[in-house]
Amino acid sequence: MIEKPSLPDFDADDVVESAVVSRLAGNWNKRATVKKSEPDLDDLFDTSKHDYPEALIPFADHDVYRTLSDTTRAKLRAWGWIAFNKNVMDVEQHVVHPGFALLAQDAFDIGMGDVLAVAVTQAMVDEQYHTLMHLNASALTRRKRGWALSERCLPLSGTVRRRHATQASAVDSNDAALNSLAFMTVAEISITSYLNLIEDNELIQPVNRATVALHNRDEYCHASIADEMAAIVFESLNSGDRRVFLDGLADGMDAFSSTDFSTWSAILQQEGVVGGDCMLQEVETDGSRKQLVQDYGGIRSLCRKLDVEDEIGIDWS
Amino acid sequence: MIEKPSLPDFDADDVVESAVVSRLAGNWNKRATVKKSEPDLDDLFDTSKHDYPEALIPFADHDVYRTLSDTTRAKLRAWGWIAFNKNVMDVEQHVVHPGFALLAQDAFDIGMGDVLAVAVTQAMVDEQYHTLMHLNASALTRRKRGWALSERCLPLSGTVRRRHATQASAVDSNDAALNSLAFMTVAEISITSYLNLIEDNELIQPVNRATVALHNRDEYCHASIADEMAAIVFESLNSGDRRVFLDGLADGMDAFSSTDFSTWSAILQQEGVVGGDCMLQEVETDGSRKQLVQDYGGIRSLCRKLDVEDEIGIDWS
Repeated sequence: MIEKPSLPDFDADDVVESAVVSRLAGNWNKRATVKKSEPDLDDLFDTSKHDYPEALIPFADHDVYRTLSDTTRAKLRAWGWIAFNKNVMDVEQHVVHPGFALLAQDAFDIGMGDVLAVAVTQAMVDEQYHTLMHLNASALTRRKRGWALSERCLPLSGTVRRRHATQASAVDSNDAALNSLAFMTVAEISITSYLNLIEDNELIQPVNRATVALHNRDEYCHASIADEMAAIVFESLNSGDRRVFLDGLADGMDAFSSTDFSTWSAILQQEGVVGGDCMLQEVETDGSRKQLVQDYGGIRSLCRKLDVEDEIGIDWS
Repeated sequence: MIEKPSLPDFDADDVVESAVVSRLAGNWNKRATVKKSEPDLDDLFDTSKHDYPEALIPFADHDVYRTLSDTTRAKLRAWGWIAFNKNVMDVEQHVVHPGFALLAQDAFDIGMGDVLAVAVTQAMVDEQYHTLMHLNASALTRRKRGWALSERCLPLSGTVRRRHATQASAVDSNDAALNSLAFMTVAEISITSYLNLIEDNELIQPVNRATVALHNRDEYCHASIADEMAAIVFESLNSGDRRVFLDGLADGMDAFSSTDFSTWSAILQQEGVVGGDCMLQEVETDGSRKQLVQDYGGIRSLCRKLDVEDEIGIDWS
């Protein structure tokens, strides 16, 4: 997995590089979404389409929701999209950015060569651009619909709150860094499945589908980079640090797939939906509802590569 | 200064926008360096040129330096460029990014509209890209010269260390945020003069001049955005918070113009230059040497606009 760079280097024997990451670093200029022209979002907006799939609204089949006016339901769907974007932006800023920043500084002292450092720094540019893309998408929804829908009314992403709690309880800065790397790894390797929730469905707003599709294209490359970097760091760790990293992966997977209704609660309150809290409580306790879980196949593959698939304490089934 | 957006908006009376920032947000796609094709750095590298101007090496006239071999002096000039890049990257990551992140979250509760939020988030993409540009420039120097020159041997930028100390001693998170905004404002409004130190001089490496010129073009726009945002936040503050912000500006200017020889000390030690520490001590105590100060004309203009030019306790002369 760890290979020498394809180009001769001044100290090719001493620095850690990776052929996979080297290839991705070399074609960033051509493949990264940030390097493309900005799409004309206004042209793509279709007022007749849904801003967010009802399949992702946990109370879409509940009577309280079904009997709301068409306008209120449309507004709640628009809120669903705003909240989806806020979740992506929160994760980019507070999970992915700090995790990549640690790698860029070689905080784990892997003796990283320039090609890995460049690839990680390119990914950080992409991530900052994804935040901009999702902010633009929310701003367009607000402008085209004429509704305020300010994400500042919404709580910080539940995943980010979980990460903050884990960081605060870490025994030292070394454990905190390993946990930060683990959360970033989970985010980068499984975000594509979260983005895929906005299906390529004719009913859904074309701008929103385009935003997610463009973001996702970058993330397939980031998943490769994150997977490779996690493996390189893992191989350099002692057994105690490996345990901390694996516990962080398990914690991260749990955090990313936990149901967090605090955002919907804030939205329903904002819109003054009568019976909203009761509806959320009923949906939350209704075991029949299918959970929207993340796809952790990528993390499982990573664990298999590291030969720790059974050590991590996760029921993969 | 605070104007309505040029486009009609759903709640144009309620949100804070700015015509200057709105124009910059609208043409980011066309003007930002990150949106351009990557230059072919290898083609621009000229081995016969100096990697860094001797005029910026504080001990360039000292006998210890003058009597070193040509190779060692060339290597120290290359180190000067690596250290310059590291300083830029440290400031981007640890001063500018956190300051803009606070604005993007509307941490100062100015009731920011989407156009301001988009402009700030665009600037954050630019800043992350500048980190990549300067990393690429250092990596190229290492590769072309065949010298390791790892910036990981160098201490964190003195300005960043000062900011960390000020953050740690802030009485609460509100004061810390105001101080963070102040340091970012100083960085963004005065960085162009730091970049201009790499003059457009035929003796200097064309890649390095190009890197600085491209970076600088973005920063002239960022200076306008930072200036406007600082003014908008300042007008919304109470008198106690205004004082904290102005003290932060003064502290930031002092930090950015302080001489920090710890980086040169690390470099001379790394290269085993005999008498290096004595040389640095002599240069440090030699009052005749011209200080390389930042140009704070932009900050002075901002203070004049805020009508606090005399309140800030700075001798502008």
